[in-house]
Amino acid sequence: MSLIQEKVNQAIQILKEQNIDLWLTFVRETSGVRDPVLDFLIGENDLTWPSALILTKHGDKIAIVGSLEKEALTRMDIFSEIIGYDAAVSGILRETITRLNPDWIAVNTSKNNVHADGLTHAMYEFLIEYLAGTPFADRLISAEPLINAMRGRKTKAELARIQKAVEITEEIYQKTFAFIKAGMTEVEVADYMHSLMKEYGVGFAWPRENNPAVNSGPNKVVGHNGPSSIRIERGHVIHFDFGVKYEGYCSDIQRVAYVLREGETEAPVEVQRGFITIRTAIEKAREAMKAGATGNSIDTIAREIVTDSGYPEYKYALGHQLGRVAHDGGALLGPLWEKYGDSPNQKLEIGQVFTIEPGLAVSNYGYIGLEEDVVLTEEGAMYIGEPQREIVLLKG
Amino acid sequence: MSLIQEKVNQAIQILKEQNIDLWLTFVRETSGVRDPVLDFLIGENDLTWPSALILTKHGDKIAIVGSLEKEALTRMDIFSEIIGYDAAVSGILRETITRLNPDWIAVNTSKNNVHADGLTHAMYEFLIEYLAGTPFADRLISAEPLINAMRGRKTKAELARIQKAVEITEEIYQKTFAFIKAGMTEVEVADYMHSLMKEYGVGFAWPRENNPAVNSGPNKVVGHNGPSSIRIERGHVIHFDFGVKYEGYCSDIQRVAYVLREGETEAPVEVQRGFITIRTAIEKAREAMKAGATGNSIDTIAREIVTDSGYPEYKYALGHQLGRVAHDGGALLGPLWEKYGDSPNQKLEIGQVFTIEPGLAVSNYGYIGLEEDVVLTEEGAMYIGEPQREIVLLKG
Repeated sequence: MSLIQEKVNQAIQILKEQNIDLWLTFVRETSGVRDPVLDFLIGENDLTWPSALILTKHGDKIAIVGSLEKEALTRMDIFSEIIGYDAAVSGILRETITRLNPDWIAVNTSKNNVHADGLTHAMYEFLIEYLAGTPFADRLISAEPLINAMRGRKTKAELARIQKAVEITEEIYQKTFAFIKAGMTEVEVADYMHSLMKEYGVGFAWPRENNPAVNSGPNKVVGHNGPSSIRIERGHVIHFDFGVKYEGYCSDIQRVAYVLREGETEAPVEVQRGFITIRTAIEKAREAMKAGATGNSIDTIAREIVTDSGYPEYKYALGHQLGRVAHDGGALLGPLWEKYGDSPNQKLEIGQVFTIEPGLAVSNYGYIGLEEDVVLTEEGAMYIGEPQREIVLLKG
Repeated sequence: MSLIQEKVNQAIQILKEQNIDLWLTFVRETSGVRDPVLDFLIGENDLTWPSALILTKHGDKIAIVGSLEKEALTRMDIFSEIIGYDAAVSGILRETITRLNPDWIAVNTSKNNVHADGLTHAMYEFLIEYLAGTPFADRLISAEPLINAMRGRKTKAELARIQKAVEITEEIYQKTFAFIKAGMTEVEVADYMHSLMKEYGVGFAWPRENNPAVNSGPNKVVGHNGPSSIRIERGHVIHFDFGVKYEGYCSDIQRVAYVLREGETEAPVEVQRGFITIRTAIEKAREAMKAGATGNSIDTIAREIVTDSGYPEYKYALGHQLGRVAHDGGALLGPLWEKYGDSPNQKLEIGQVFTIEPGLAVSNYGYIGLEEDVVLTEEGAMYIGEPQREIVLLKG
């Protein structure tokens, strides 16, 4: 069974579990605006004309597509009923939904999870227009709970790909630490990491402009910005944020190194203190993670460890889910800030993969941020790969 | 000036021309759902937190973004005012719009053009919520006319990239015609074309699954589906649909070849007749193209040439615009079918690039479809590259 077939069957199970009659993904010209759930329904393929992909809790798998795309969809072997049309989708869509007579129709609109929010406003208006005069226009609900569950609960095949992505990321980090010399620019280090990515045949978990982020020393502005012409110097903390995509699945890992000054055999005490604070925050957060806990409760644990140690509060969420994209949606290990919507209140589920990534700045040295990837199991959250337990020391 | 700076300045000119006070692009987590206009505003970069990109007819270029992305945006040197925030975008957005006090706010929602339809339904609802209690919630209009003009009117730099994409496509076609031998499968031909793409360092104008389409002989189902294990035989018409992406801009070209049978020195008369019909339809359509004509009037010319010659009507539009994506939006050379919305009624403008691509099947031989790319100038529509004027004859 292909990964797509596996995820489509999982979606039908979740429809049953959540008692949702019908899930409708309504799209067009997906090379222009691509609903993120298409990755799970048709892989990397595109649909050109207005198309409806329908799954029901009874196991129906129906696609209504332009007739020129019927053959391609048939080959994929995902949908059991494929209806092609030439001029107008509205009548066929109305007839199909009337025949299925659902109490509720879940559509891809969501305030909390962008990955459940692929329905554009105009496509929503088309749907209302096409269903006008039927009982179904009033039966639209958000598919967010369904999509959160489907994206969140990783199958074995999905988890294996993430593990492989993490493994490659760790190998690239090791080679990079051996490569770095004082005097190199951040850009030179990033170029080297890109060349290793090419060797490993992996893609970018997020755009190459700031992947990897390489931040050397106290003068670099840290954030979603890429490597600069700043030169690595002895006495710098170097912070990295880096993620690769392996067969469609991402890693997302931060690491920290320190370039020893002459005579030094370890990092200065304030750097070590910063590192231990972050390491402790990660470990305590991981230990507290379990099914049913809210993401916010986990965020609070790590956040307080950092602020109680006298550091300023980091201005972002402790961790996000990881999967087909680096920032996957659904339950978030985050504070209750407007920009995060309801995601931090959502409960953790077995099979979800999260990042844990607190951070702080150490004056005169640089930024310390670690990021580990973990998977939630019956036995708790397990590290994927080896967490960074000590600061990497570079000879300079 | 970078291509992005050039397009942003062009957008401001179009705002003036169309007398739209303010254009608001409102997005979040663009690695998940990406508004297509971002290519013109921030290139390949992503925005993580809810972000507002504002251009006004007075020349304001304002970005409201998560504070961690402020530095990256500053480096791009596109926006003259960049406001960072940590927790909530709503207040800053409301204040900024109130300060600018626009009569109309164009937002990215469009029934006719998917490339002007990047605003999701949930983001639209956020906007209405954030602007509630101000006069601005009722001032939202569609940015479709603005985006159509901006995407359609190619700058010199954009046109040069499309020309280069077409040039490379033609070279790959020539090499492929020299490579093909009877007995090869469609997939083998496509693999060879992929290897040439790699040599040329170009990307795919649409996904590789059906790029190139390679359709050999009368038994292949033609449409948006890729090459199969069908073997090329003498007496087959081979039809190709292929497009590359060069520095972000696409080509989209169809070609037709015929594999000579023993003793043949030219294609059978019915194949020639089909080819000439399609070639004539393209040429007559091109000659009729001028600024101010509707796309539908051009579609009708070619469509009637094909049906008047006794062939069935092709079930798709004669041609679409071409640019950053193969199927770019706005005015369409198409019939007045529901699935095309109002696009066929829109008027052609100088600077637009179109495909022209009628097709027909010849019984017992295969599918004949040609596709040429043209740019509309003051002197009429000009071919980009060399059109196919005769059927390519392969020795088999």
